[in-house]
Amino acid sequence: MKITKPTLLINKSICEENIKRIYNKANQSNTELIPHYKTHQSIETGKIYLKTGINKITVSSVSMAQKFANSSYKEITIAFPLNFAEIDEINSLAENNNIVITLESKEAAEFTVENIKQKISFIIEIDTGYNRTGIWFENENAISEILEIASKNKLLNFFGFMIHDGLVYNTKSVSEIEEIHQNTKSKLIKLKQKFNTKISMGDSASASLVSDFSGIDILRPGNFVYYDLMQQKLGSCNYENIALTVACPVVSIHKERNEVIIYGGVVHFSKEFLIDEKGNKFFGIPVIYDSEFKNFKIIENAYVKALSQEHGIIKIESEEIDNIKHGQIIGILPIHACLTADLLLDSSIYI
Amino acid sequence: MKITKPTLLINKSICEENIKRIYNKANQSNTELIPHYKTHQSIETGKIYLKTGINKITVSSVSMAQKFANSSYKEITIAFPLNFAEIDEINSLAENNNIVITLESKEAAEFTVENIKQKISFIIEIDTGYNRTGIWFENENAISEILEIASKNKLLNFFGFMIHDGLVYNTKSVSEIEEIHQNTKSKLIKLKQKFNTKISMGDSASASLVSDFSGIDILRPGNFVYYDLMQQKLGSCNYENIALTVACPVVSIHKERNEVIIYGGVVHFSKEFLIDEKGNKFFGIPVIYDSEFKNFKIIENAYVKALSQEHGIIKIESEEIDNIKHGQIIGILPIHACLTADLLLDSSIYI
Repeated sequence: MKITKPTLLINKSICEENIKRIYNKANQSNTELIPHYKTHQSIETGKIYLKTGINKITVSSVSMAQKFANSSYKEITIAFPLNFAEIDEINSLAENNNIVITLESKEAAEFTVENIKQKISFIIEIDTGYNRTGIWFENENAISEILEIASKNKLLNFFGFMIHDGLVYNTKSVSEIEEIHQNTKSKLIKLKQKFNTKISMGDSASASLVSDFSGIDILRPGNFVYYDLMQQKLGSCNYENIALTVACPVVSIHKERNEVIIYGGVVHFSKEFLIDEKGNKFFGIPVIYDSEFKNFKIIENAYVKALSQEHGIIKIESEEIDNIKHGQIIGILPIHACLTADLLLDSSIYI
Repeated sequence: MKITKPTLLINKSICEENIKRIYNKANQSNTELIPHYKTHQSIETGKIYLKTGINKITVSSVSMAQKFANSSYKEITIAFPLNFAEIDEINSLAENNNIVITLESKEAAEFTVENIKQKISFIIEIDTGYNRTGIWFENENAISEILEIASKNKLLNFFGFMIHDGLVYNTKSVSEIEEIHQNTKSKLIKLKQKFNTKISMGDSASASLVSDFSGIDILRPGNFVYYDLMQQKLGSCNYENIALTVACPVVSIHKERNEVIIYGGVVHFSKEFLIDEKGNKFFGIPVIYDSEFKNFKIIENAYVKALSQEHGIIKIESEEIDNIKHGQIIGILPIHACLTADLLLDSSIYI
């Protein structure tokens, strides 16, 4: 395999294991796994899901729904507040696909009732404190209002409630994630009982860390298919569960400051970073591949110190810098898989 | 014009003005403008340059050189340390194009001498303190060594020295930028005299703020064609010089917390941010377009507070929030034009 520029290497067997782990756990709780495809956006990774027996999916845009439409998927949920400007595209999609749209306001419900031309399901997004989108969980009047408006068009079918509890990503311990998850779940279950419907929850941290999902009808995590350094830091996974690295050519070595420069920058990784124990920002962790790029070994005392548009500066504070050669391919474990996969979607190789 | 999803709107006449301003200033100093195309990467924006009379360009990857090759450009400088893995592509490019590659190590010079099959020029990158890539300016032995190695292959032609002085972007005042520029320039001029060759310098901050470039043979800024909020903050431009906005549909309004949610997130803007006077991180500034999307008005007391993959949360702390409607198109002035343009290259409209 010849790598000439930054290339996303996706390890299929790790993906399979990651999928099966959550799928089996969900099955035990009688919870359906309808994974979020925003992380990978890839037809090929989709095939790994299909092979595992998963054929309903969640996406975060109409464009993404179009990409996976008219193929093997039985249901596509667009988990993003209805974009009025794409109503024609949604109607077209719904001609041949089971589409679930997201409503979280009276205005959007009214618009939908007036403009829908096909049978479409809708999910109501709920907010319990993340404060991005969704109806406040205590605002049952607003929920009832949407349901009443929606009932005016027989093509519209109520699917249930959904939440993405982003608060789990601002935590510092596994127990904190579990606590937030249980807290949010209990609020959703109250709504489920009150409105006699299904509830969906989705984030990869709690999907990975919580052992029992009973009461949750649908789980919609995305990141867990690949994992990344953010998830590793949260405790959702170990390094060996991370299914993707970015293979980058070494283009310069500056031993006088223990630095190696790679072809691989913000346009490949995104500018997401983490802070290490010493307080240093880092943008990835470098690894050395085996000859087939299948396995890797983390370079000790090394991190991606800075990124420009196309350059990455790797600091290597160990003797391993002496083994690095101009032209060599180094791997980088990314901070945030969703963003890196988005940037390198057209430069992916499955190994 | 119907906008249905995040779309880069590029104002052609502002681009033209931005180009002409620097081009005329460079001419007065007898300095050649060989703009960096990494900011826009666009055939269409390239045509604006060609129309202005500019037909030599700088790029930051072999892929980018390939994109602009075999067309109207008389010279393409790949301003990035030689990537050994792409030597075949470089040889192919050089068959029909004047290619300038970047060398900054003995190893790269040796590799080039052994592998070059076409006439190619090389530029030596110099470092005066930015510490990314380049040979330390005082290390004249290393420079001489590269020149000696290169002299062994008659196909290789020494072009001169080049620097990107990224330090100007860590400054807090216009005078600091000017001081760094003059300081770096004087170091480059010494090398120019010693080695009797040309020198190139390139960054948009000093290109915009310094009035006299005499002594510099070539100027290679990139960002100035579009400008952005980072440059505005540095003092390189005013808001009205910013040639690009991202047009985004409003998908949700949460008046209870003065927030408007747009379809437009990290995959459209990148995660670059600035800090305002109150210490708040912000990821863009929202504007309201006129009916033709040609002109815009900044929304008062408003900023992009947070970005998810596809969502943008706009905080509007003024009565203007009452005028925002579901489905409306709002514009966002981006923090970093190079990254936003890279992300939305295939969703651009010229106005």
